[in-house]
Amino acid sequence: MTGRLPSGPGMHLLAAATALPGPAIGNEVLAGRLGLSAEWVEMFIGTRTRHFAVDLGGGVGCLLADLCEQAAVRCLERAGLTVRDLAFVVLATATPDALMPTTAAVVADRLGGVGIPVYQLQSGCSGAVQAFTLAEALLAREPARPGRESGEGKGPGPYGLVLGGDVCAKHLDLQQDFRRMPPAQLVNYVIFGDGAGAAVVSAAPAPGSAAFLGLGHRLALPGQPPGQHVEWYGAADRDSALPPVSEDYKAVECLVPELAQQVCAELLDALGWSPQDLGYLLPPQLGGLMTRRITAALRSGLGVEKAVEISCVADTGNTGNALVLSQLEQLLPLLTPGARALCACVESSRWISAGFALEAS
Amino acid sequence: MTGRLPSGPGMHLLAAATALPGPAIGNEVLAGRLGLSAEWVEMFIGTRTRHFAVDLGGGVGCLLADLCEQAAVRCLERAGLTVRDLAFVVLATATPDALMPTTAAVVADRLGGVGIPVYQLQSGCSGAVQAFTLAEALLAREPARPGRESGEGKGPGPYGLVLGGDVCAKHLDLQQDFRRMPPAQLVNYVIFGDGAGAAVVSAAPAPGSAAFLGLGHRLALPGQPPGQHVEWYGAADRDSALPPVSEDYKAVECLVPELAQQVCAELLDALGWSPQDLGYLLPPQLGGLMTRRITAALRSGLGVEKAVEISCVADTGNTGNALVLSQLEQLLPLLTPGARALCACVESSRWISAGFALEAS
Repeated sequence: MTGRLPSGPGMHLLAAATALPGPAIGNEVLAGRLGLSAEWVEMFIGTRTRHFAVDLGGGVGCLLADLCEQAAVRCLERAGLTVRDLAFVVLATATPDALMPTTAAVVADRLGGVGIPVYQLQSGCSGAVQAFTLAEALLAREPARPGRESGEGKGPGPYGLVLGGDVCAKHLDLQQDFRRMPPAQLVNYVIFGDGAGAAVVSAAPAPGSAAFLGLGHRLALPGQPPGQHVEWYGAADRDSALPPVSEDYKAVECLVPELAQQVCAELLDALGWSPQDLGYLLPPQLGGLMTRRITAALRSGLGVEKAVEISCVADTGNTGNALVLSQLEQLLPLLTPGARALCACVESSRWISAGFALEAS
Repeated sequence: MTGRLPSGPGMHLLAAATALPGPAIGNEVLAGRLGLSAEWVEMFIGTRTRHFAVDLGGGVGCLLADLCEQAAVRCLERAGLTVRDLAFVVLATATPDALMPTTAAVVADRLGGVGIPVYQLQSGCSGAVQAFTLAEALLAREPARPGRESGEGKGPGPYGLVLGGDVCAKHLDLQQDFRRMPPAQLVNYVIFGDGAGAAVVSAAPAPGSAAFLGLGHRLALPGQPPGQHVEWYGAADRDSALPPVSEDYKAVECLVPELAQQVCAELLDALGWSPQDLGYLLPPQLGGLMTRRITAALRSGLGVEKAVEISCVADTGNTGNALVLSQLEQLLPLLTPGARALCACVESSRWISAGFALEAS
């Protein structure tokens, strides 16, 4: 992606974890509420369940900070580390709990991460890749650390924590009259879901870790109009007629598969990997149906027929900045030494191509 | 700040520029509109003028993207570079034009920066320092570039563009009845201003450039409640009773000077600089009066009596993520070879200490 491949692996994935709010909400319940048919959602969107940070019954929900904290605690535990081992925290989200303070700072404070730098990236579907790229650069600035003495065998640091998540609660008005809503907006209620993910990364490999290769992202498609717009309202424009979320689904359907294939082809080429060597494919995920279609197109287009698809969107909905971290949580336990995976993301807001390869240690 | 000082300078400031919307709005006009006394604002806030991205007369205003684009164009021109020379763009803001697409991506697209990675940091008063820290890490990942052939003498790259700015237009409701507004909210209307700034940085020095030393930021004051909260409203909570902006000014007045002094003392100590060697001081800026007080406290507390204060807040208002870039625009032409400056920022939302030193080439 970035032409920096010859410098070799500089970052390793040690652990990944996720947190989803409340119970899984099936299409029967949600479609009924929206006046849609559950079968239609299943067939044309392909998403079976999702989780929401608001309680459909009107009870108390949770914040993005709550989900990020849960995912972070699980992930640090899996990595055999504590917050005191971290050199930094990076959180990627499109939907922070507030503009200030950042959700990243709130979470880091709750975890006890005082004294370390904390970053929050405003980002969409490429957010986890952006956060990993930033983490790779930040790890390279840090001095090497000796191995931990806890006996966890997780190898030497420095270590960083990458978080990603989205909570659509502020835009999710379930009390309104859905009969008056245009179909283009109604579809957002069945496509998106709330969730957060975490990953612990290190400058050095460890047993069970995987090396990031060819990690990068870039602005694509000059002058192409945004495929997604997500608004926020202030005190002065609360009555704005601008819709909260708008998507150009035709452009998304057309351009995402094309850009994803380009990312994967570039990665294979730059790494000199044969398509036959690829064990796992982490495709971009909008809805379950589109993910299956993109995977099919990537498999035949790249000749990676045998690569196993790793996706979660059919069960979690499109959780935005959490998606890639959910994929990594699924992938990591499957990897045997030398196993190879490709991940491609496309952000459709202002078009961004992103991706990376992983090779298990 | 980060204990990484021994590794030596890795980033150099080549140019800085700013953009402010519309005409300067004096206290007579603004205070009159708010039902405040202009003399009171002048005396107790110390801010004389500010610029707003909304037209007080109700005309069309401008976006953060417009201001960032203007500042970027000016800055690239000053650096003798074009967008094709850039390895990345980083924008820091608390008030993006929308949640998606990012203002960073919109600006980079307008500038013609397709094919490069673009980051947007959600941040407050420490945003420019966060963006510079990220830029320093990203520059270190980039391969060296040969000197430019344009004859501008700006030295070899790689180069990066750092942007910072805030536009309070969405929260700035000038049509409301200010007689019903609590004083704690009214004061926000005279403290803040809109604006954007830009800086071009390079991995290599050049004539007239200054080296960043000791650049860093960190979460401070464990468990201390946020000193500032800035809300956004979604489609589901447009009627929220949460105020758009709330500040704990008592905490700010007490803690900002203390944290700023700590940052400066650490930098002097880590760099082995004598207080007498310091030519310029870039203090944290909330309002004009508080900036003068902090500078006075820093001068006597650190023994840097002769250091010249570089500030802009009395003329621009608190422009958030643009403040440090405005200070750098003022500072850079004043620097003679070997001249030294310190910059300290404190983010009061969730408390963050930040700063850096500059030494002119």
